[in-house]
Amino acid sequence: MRFSPLLSELIDSLTCLPGVGKKSAQRMAFHLLERNREGALKLSTVLHNAMEHIRHCSQCRTFTEKDLCEICAHPQRSESGVLCIVESPQDVLAVEQTMAFDGTYFVLMGHLSPIDGIGPEEIGLTILESQLKENPVSEVILATNPTVEGEATAHYIAQLCAKYKIKASRIAHGVPVGGELEYIDGNTLTHAFSGRRTL
Amino acid sequence: MRFSPLLSELIDSLTCLPGVGKKSAQRMAFHLLERNREGALKLSTVLHNAMEHIRHCSQCRTFTEKDLCEICAHPQRSESGVLCIVESPQDVLAVEQTMAFDGTYFVLMGHLSPIDGIGPEEIGLTILESQLKENPVSEVILATNPTVEGEATAHYIAQLCAKYKIKASRIAHGVPVGGELEYIDGNTLTHAFSGRRTL
Repeated sequence: MRFSPLLSELIDSLTCLPGVGKKSAQRMAFHLLERNREGALKLSTVLHNAMEHIRHCSQCRTFTEKDLCEICAHPQRSESGVLCIVESPQDVLAVEQTMAFDGTYFVLMGHLSPIDGIGPEEIGLTILESQLKENPVSEVILATNPTVEGEATAHYIAQLCAKYKIKASRIAHGVPVGGELEYIDGNTLTHAFSGRRTL
Repeated sequence: MRFSPLLSELIDSLTCLPGVGKKSAQRMAFHLLERNREGALKLSTVLHNAMEHIRHCSQCRTFTEKDLCEICAHPQRSESGVLCIVESPQDVLAVEQTMAFDGTYFVLMGHLSPIDGIGPEEIGLTILESQLKENPVSEVILATNPTVEGEATAHYIAQLCAKYKIKASRIAHGVPVGGELEYIDGNTLTHAFSGRRTL
C-alpha cells in the first residue's frame, strides 16, 4: 500500500526542493494538508507566478520580474561609476545590507568552472564586456568568493578590465572583525598578512 | 534594498513549509529559479490539486482524494473484522509496511489533548462510536503512540469498546527488536517487564 495517488504525487513533487528528501516531503505534505491548506494554495499561486515572470535583469543579470532591477533602475546608483561583481543575488543582498556601497552590480550567477563546462559566456562575461566597452566605469570591484573558482573568475575579469583600461580591485581577505587569531585558518591568516596596510 | 517584490513573496510563501525558515526559503527559491523551474511549476500544479481535492476518507478518516481510501474500499480487508486505531496516516503506512495486518484502520488525526482543546469529537470518536454501533468488529487494536496523550486516548477508546462489548487490545510496548538492554530507557524496560509473556 502507498498513499493515495495524488498524495504520493505531492510528496514526490516536494522532493524537488533542495535538501528535502522523501521523509521531509512526507512531513511537509501532511503538515500542509492538516494545518495550512491556505498557505499551501498561496504558495502554489506564488510559485507559478514567480517561475513564469521572474527573469534576469537586462543590465546586471540578477533575478527580477521587471526589465531592470531596482538597483539598476536607480539613477543615482549608476552615476557613481563603480561596478561591483558578485557571484549570486544573495551576495548582492549581503553587500546591500552593509550600506557601504552605492554603485551598481553585475551578478555572474556562478563562477568560471571549465570542468563543469562553465566558461566566460555562461557567467555573462560577454554581456559584461560589451557593457564595459559602451559605458566605461571608473572602477570594478571584484567581490567573488575567495574560493579557487572565485579567484580564477576575479583574475579573468581583472584581465578584461585591463584590456579596457578600467581600474579593477579585489575586496580584502583577512581576519573577520570580532574573530580571534587563534581560531583563524592558516590560509586566511596568510591573506591577512600579505594584505596588511600601513597605519 | 530587498529582493524584487515577487521574489520576496516567493521566499515568504516558502516559509509556510514546516522546518523552513527565511534562509532555507531563500536557498530554495534561488535553487528553483536557477536550476529547476520545470519542477517548481509541476509542484505548483500538484500543490493546488492536492489542496483542492484531498479530503478525509469517509470511513477511516485518512487522507484521500476519493470518497473511500484504498484500504477501506478493499472488500477482503473489511471482512477481517479487525480495526486498528492509529494517530496519523503515516502510522497507517508504517503498519502496512510490516505486512502483518490485514484489517481496516481508523485514523484519529491526532490524540486527545484537553489542554489544546482537542476532545473526543475532534479526533473523530463520535464517528468511530457510530461505526462500532452499526458494524461491530471482532477486535479493536489500539496502536496510538506510547506517549501520555496516546495512552490516554487508547484508554478512552478501550472504554468505548467495553460499552459495545467489543474486545480491545493494545499493541505491545517493550524492548525493540535488535535493541540492547543496556541502552534502553527505564520506562520502556518497565513496560517490557510488566508485559512479559510465558514461554
